[in-house]
Amino acid sequence: MSKPKVFEKPIGVKDYLPHAVSKLRQIENQVLACMDSWGYEQIMTPTMEYYDTVGVASSTSDQKLFKLLNNRGTTLVLRSDMTAPIARVVSSVLKDAQFPIRLSYHSNVFRAIEEEAGREAEFYQTGVELVGDASPDADAEVVALAIASLKAAGVSRFKIAIGHVGFLNGLFEEALPGEREAQEDLKAHLLGRDYVGYRERLRSLTLSEEMQGELEGITRLRGGQEICSQALALSLDETAQASIRHLCEMWDVLEAYGVCEHVLIDLTMIGDFKYYTGMTFEAYAADLGFPVASGGRYDNLLKQFGRPAPATGFALKTTRILELIGDSLSESISERVLIGYDADGRTAALDAARELRAKGAAVSVVTERMDAASKAAVRDAAAGGTGKQVHYKGVAFTKLLTFFGGERERE
Amino acid sequence: MSKPKVFEKPIGVKDYLPHAVSKLRQIENQVLACMDSWGYEQIMTPTMEYYDTVGVASSTSDQKLFKLLNNRGTTLVLRSDMTAPIARVVSSVLKDAQFPIRLSYHSNVFRAIEEEAGREAEFYQTGVELVGDASPDADAEVVALAIASLKAAGVSRFKIAIGHVGFLNGLFEEALPGEREAQEDLKAHLLGRDYVGYRERLRSLTLSEEMQGELEGITRLRGGQEICSQALALSLDETAQASIRHLCEMWDVLEAYGVCEHVLIDLTMIGDFKYYTGMTFEAYAADLGFPVASGGRYDNLLKQFGRPAPATGFALKTTRILELIGDSLSESISERVLIGYDADGRTAALDAARELRAKGAAVSVVTERMDAASKAAVRDAAAGGTGKQVHYKGVAFTKLLTFFGGERERE
Repeated sequence: MSKPKVFEKPIGVKDYLPHAVSKLRQIENQVLACMDSWGYEQIMTPTMEYYDTVGVASSTSDQKLFKLLNNRGTTLVLRSDMTAPIARVVSSVLKDAQFPIRLSYHSNVFRAIEEEAGREAEFYQTGVELVGDASPDADAEVVALAIASLKAAGVSRFKIAIGHVGFLNGLFEEALPGEREAQEDLKAHLLGRDYVGYRERLRSLTLSEEMQGELEGITRLRGGQEICSQALALSLDETAQASIRHLCEMWDVLEAYGVCEHVLIDLTMIGDFKYYTGMTFEAYAADLGFPVASGGRYDNLLKQFGRPAPATGFALKTTRILELIGDSLSESISERVLIGYDADGRTAALDAARELRAKGAAVSVVTERMDAASKAAVRDAAAGGTGKQVHYKGVAFTKLLTFFGGERERE
Repeated sequence: MSKPKVFEKPIGVKDYLPHAVSKLRQIENQVLACMDSWGYEQIMTPTMEYYDTVGVASSTSDQKLFKLLNNRGTTLVLRSDMTAPIARVVSSVLKDAQFPIRLSYHSNVFRAIEEEAGREAEFYQTGVELVGDASPDADAEVVALAIASLKAAGVSRFKIAIGHVGFLNGLFEEALPGEREAQEDLKAHLLGRDYVGYRERLRSLTLSEEMQGELEGITRLRGGQEICSQALALSLDETAQASIRHLCEMWDVLEAYGVCEHVLIDLTMIGDFKYYTGMTFEAYAADLGFPVASGGRYDNLLKQFGRPAPATGFALKTTRILELIGDSLSESISERVLIGYDADGRTAALDAARELRAKGAAVSVVTERMDAASKAAVRDAAAGGTGKQVHYKGVAFTKLLTFFGGERERE
């Protein structure tokens, strides 16, 4: 016998069954409502963008972009994030809207992946962009909104680690002037949270003992606002100093938002997006190795689309959050009714269905005309129902009504 | 001076700005809630599918499929409908779920298009599939649900034209036995609603005068259940007769649903999907030339995925409905508040923002730290506000609160 053919979906993509969709929708609606209440308005952009503009401006490496050709032979990409498409919209369709512009989105994004890694090629993000405001207040607003959004999504225990790309850039340039390769190596180790590799690379460099100690010491610079004063003593570089002052002012605003219990300054934080220019942050849920949200400031991206402006934002990794807290959400529909009917009971049955639906119940109908087996099954289910739960063909209903032979038999 | 570079999106795809998204979301939520209440559960499938399985099974012609390659060099397609992906899911992940299976979806789909035509390459559909029930009751259920869904979407004036592919197949086979090409030509004219072309093609064929008259006459077969008896007299072909009996029984059920005022039997109706095997229908809104929903029975598609089963369903053309009725929807957020603050007023301002957000208002904050111009603008807006509407940077707010110099200045 030949092996039955299995119909698969492509590697790295998912089907979401009703149980999961219902929970994903609940997260999506609650988070978008939260963003709405902070004055962010939702937009939608196309799945496909031009490679030459949005594709190139996105933070995704070329080999991780899904590419395709349109009828004219122009290369398109499946969007790999929403930040670059929103920069395009702000610079084109919204070019007459005044800053600051606050936009939100819930969207799938795509990353071509190594098949072995088990990572996802399509996943959902829910996020915001605040364009046209360079202040520490704007950065604090998006961090505070990320915290409110995580809570709205049902994530209760989490920490947000905040860093600043300017601090590391300034510090490394001061310690290793002009040594691009060494600087990039060190940053790559920090990005990967590989502190062992970071220290080994440091020791391979020609540095004074004091400088060596200071650069090693930053891996311990993690905590509240007191970290800022320690960091100010570490580097005299103007970029590094300005970065720390910015974080310190952000902290003041975060205190006014009353969210500092969730926040931690971590000066080894490097956002994984190449367009970040200022503060960056990642949110970690308790007991999870991967971030559930990330964000940062990107003051040079809009310029690439012809409308220079500072900008900051974040994205929740919504499908990861679904895996994390899916089981703690409750079902939205409380009553599931099955109605069985035959030709004589049809009008009464469909009238009853209409009334129950209008009252918020989910009603499935089944007619005896279908086949003899289902007729028997409905009668069996009706006979066996306790009024609390009835099973029919593997599905549980809270109620069963039958309309056979012109009269309502039982409820 | 060089022409400024314009950053465009690809042809045939759209950006949806906040006003449109808010209305699209309203339609989406109302329609999905309606489908929920009929016992249909929502699923989501990947944007990309294998060309060899779902791509080939879909109703879209090969040149209209967007194709791309994955890392292994396998051809993928962007889904062109949701019916084929759902058939895959029902035959794989849901292979142990018993029939009937009722599933709903809201999803974007993709069609590569001729650029001149101005048609859309990506658009949204909201629909259902009812799998495992071959009865006229099942077909009537999806038609009645299409009617309820259109009403839920806010479309009030519309008609649903119902036909049956079996009637035309039987009639043409009887009139032109074995003449495939002539039969296909005639169907193509009917599909395009080109009755002039249909009659011309008829006259080019060798047919008895009586048969000629009968085949011409079907373009006038449009109306209520009485059309069925007229049609039964037209053809003795068994397929044609069975098709008409099926439509007649459907009509009885639609009467029990109380929806016949929206329904019309139209025996020239041919669904534009090649997988349709039985009844097909299209919904037309008043004064619009294109359908706002379409559906039909496809009893041979599931077999291609290894789990043979009858099935029926429909899809609302959601983004078309948005264009049609967008302006008649109301905004969901009633209060939009702008709060201006400086460093001294920060804590009081952000406390006020939190309280208002919890009460359902959309609150944007602006700090004076941003720049001198915005400080002046906030003060101007605060001074000019009548309590009903305040404009700040081109955006209208229903209320403005300022917290400058440590005290709440005005409300």
